[in-house]
Amino acid sequence: MAIRYNRRMLSEFQLIERYFHRAPRPAGPVRLGVGDDCALLQIPAGETLAVSTDMLVEGRHFFTGADPHALGHKTLAVNLSDLAAIGARPLGFTLAISLPSADAEWLHAFSTGLLALADLHQIELVGGDTTRGPLNLCVTVLGSVPESAAIRRNGARPGDEIWVSGSLGDAKLALSALLGEISLTGDQLSLASERLHRPTPRNALGLALRGIATAAIDVSDGLLGDLGHILKQSDAGAVIHADELPYGLALSRRDPEQRRALALNGGDDYELCFCAPASRHDAVLDAGRQSHTEVTCIGRLRAEPGVQLLDASGRTLALMNQSFDHFTS
Amino acid sequence: MAIRYNRRMLSEFQLIERYFHRAPRPAGPVRLGVGDDCALLQIPAGETLAVSTDMLVEGRHFFTGADPHALGHKTLAVNLSDLAAIGARPLGFTLAISLPSADAEWLHAFSTGLLALADLHQIELVGGDTTRGPLNLCVTVLGSVPESAAIRRNGARPGDEIWVSGSLGDAKLALSALLGEISLTGDQLSLASERLHRPTPRNALGLALRGIATAAIDVSDGLLGDLGHILKQSDAGAVIHADELPYGLALSRRDPEQRRALALNGGDDYELCFCAPASRHDAVLDAGRQSHTEVTCIGRLRAEPGVQLLDASGRTLALMNQSFDHFTS
Repeated sequence: MAIRYNRRMLSEFQLIERYFHRAPRPAGPVRLGVGDDCALLQIPAGETLAVSTDMLVEGRHFFTGADPHALGHKTLAVNLSDLAAIGARPLGFTLAISLPSADAEWLHAFSTGLLALADLHQIELVGGDTTRGPLNLCVTVLGSVPESAAIRRNGARPGDEIWVSGSLGDAKLALSALLGEISLTGDQLSLASERLHRPTPRNALGLALRGIATAAIDVSDGLLGDLGHILKQSDAGAVIHADELPYGLALSRRDPEQRRALALNGGDDYELCFCAPASRHDAVLDAGRQSHTEVTCIGRLRAEPGVQLLDASGRTLALMNQSFDHFTS
Repeated sequence: MAIRYNRRMLSEFQLIERYFHRAPRPAGPVRLGVGDDCALLQIPAGETLAVSTDMLVEGRHFFTGADPHALGHKTLAVNLSDLAAIGARPLGFTLAISLPSADAEWLHAFSTGLLALADLHQIELVGGDTTRGPLNLCVTVLGSVPESAAIRRNGARPGDEIWVSGSLGDAKLALSALLGEISLTGDQLSLASERLHRPTPRNALGLALRGIATAAIDVSDGLLGDLGHILKQSDAGAVIHADELPYGLALSRRDPEQRRALALNGGDDYELCFCAPASRHDAVLDAGRQSHTEVTCIGRLRAEPGVQLLDASGRTLALMNQSFDHFTS
């Protein structure tokens, strides 16, 4: 069966050419872009390649009929966020995409959203694959970092402070509203939806934290779950101050318990959760200023395993660790 | 809804851990493998990163119910083939996978097939993503090559000889039989199916052709279509000798016209089609011997655009260029 566009076939090659092909920047790292068997990229001397891949599936990571411009943004944003979390500088990315049909309007909006974020980070789409099938978007992002400067998950130590960038919980608040689980005013919904649909990867902060942060992760599955990976790999526990959590703007109007639950377990925030020695407190604040990113100290690592959540008066609050998992939820 | 395995949940993390996680080789290029925000790889000094991505969709690239061991092999093989075609040495790969359910038997067979080929090429799975959704497999393969040694598509010149590795057409013959378009004996079908389901990426040949081949591509969409990319990018035409085409073993028993059509337009061969100056004829034969790969000279480039197909007596044969395209077929 032929898919037709404007009364003529839109082939795979035309599709790539029309929506995704741009000439490489002359001074950039890309030696050979889209249009050969492989792309070629120059990794800066003395640095290692950092690579991560994320797949977004319709009906699972986004709603059927999702705004394609925002979807283009988010597809790249969630991948850039992984580079941010390890302190790597973005260099380029590949895109593999499975589409039910070659819809020109959808492709135009999707590629515009995707490439706008790529431009903001001065990186290029270096290669890809397009095929027909259920809507599925897979980006592999490429960056570089001197090996010794990479911010891994296993470097935190008891006594380190725990920090979070930006704010938490609004993305999950929007998702809950869109699923009809809660109701929001129009203003609250549009505020929260922006966080769900157009997350901001914290790459400038990730770079500024090189040499300061001892461990980092991006908050995609919920703060407690993601912090849990740092705790496990760094062999530590944590004390978190609930009233220090940076709640999202829409979330701040909800009742305290819901607010806390969404900020701790919400997911889809794409903020950085990171640790740094208490002696580097001011250096972290400077890194936040340099990168124009809010940073908030929310607690401290301890040797004793597990997470303790405290209220403003020092009382322990109950917490449920319900990180999102694609195969158990 | 929870997916259950042996009466307990199999989480995304358990799934990755159980089937895909192995310790990095101590002396390999992988500095940090699965289990952090990014993987870190060391690119050899003086070389550039070569990267390619391919997405395989159920019902499009493979049949529903396809043997998962063979599918694991093929998912990596088609990506390795892209590195072979540019003369890059494989270093590692990422895998993003969308699965309808976490089926233990399927995952075991798939990962075994995938990792067996990875072991053969001494490369590692460095990162990935697993999610629930329609079956979709996306590998991004990473390799390296000195920039000046990369075998691109645009370097061929009129007078260069055209070569093909291995044999052509059996994969498409098997596909036609499986679709019920033609009938084969059991022996022929199993011979041909092996080529369809377990293609051999020609990486050793690709490396041996550095400094010899002027252009190369892997034959995934059909010889004429793929050679067409070299011709377009190298601004040349070609004369091909039909009786020199290396027909697959099963194909060689078909009638001449069908044989020719499948060898020229079949696709899914994952052989290398490459060009080299006639003065390097013996060097190409040596590269084939070194890499234990058959190589066959099938024609020559000319300045005049287009492709001319000749029979043994020098008569021009009709040819139909029907390269496979995911959005027009």
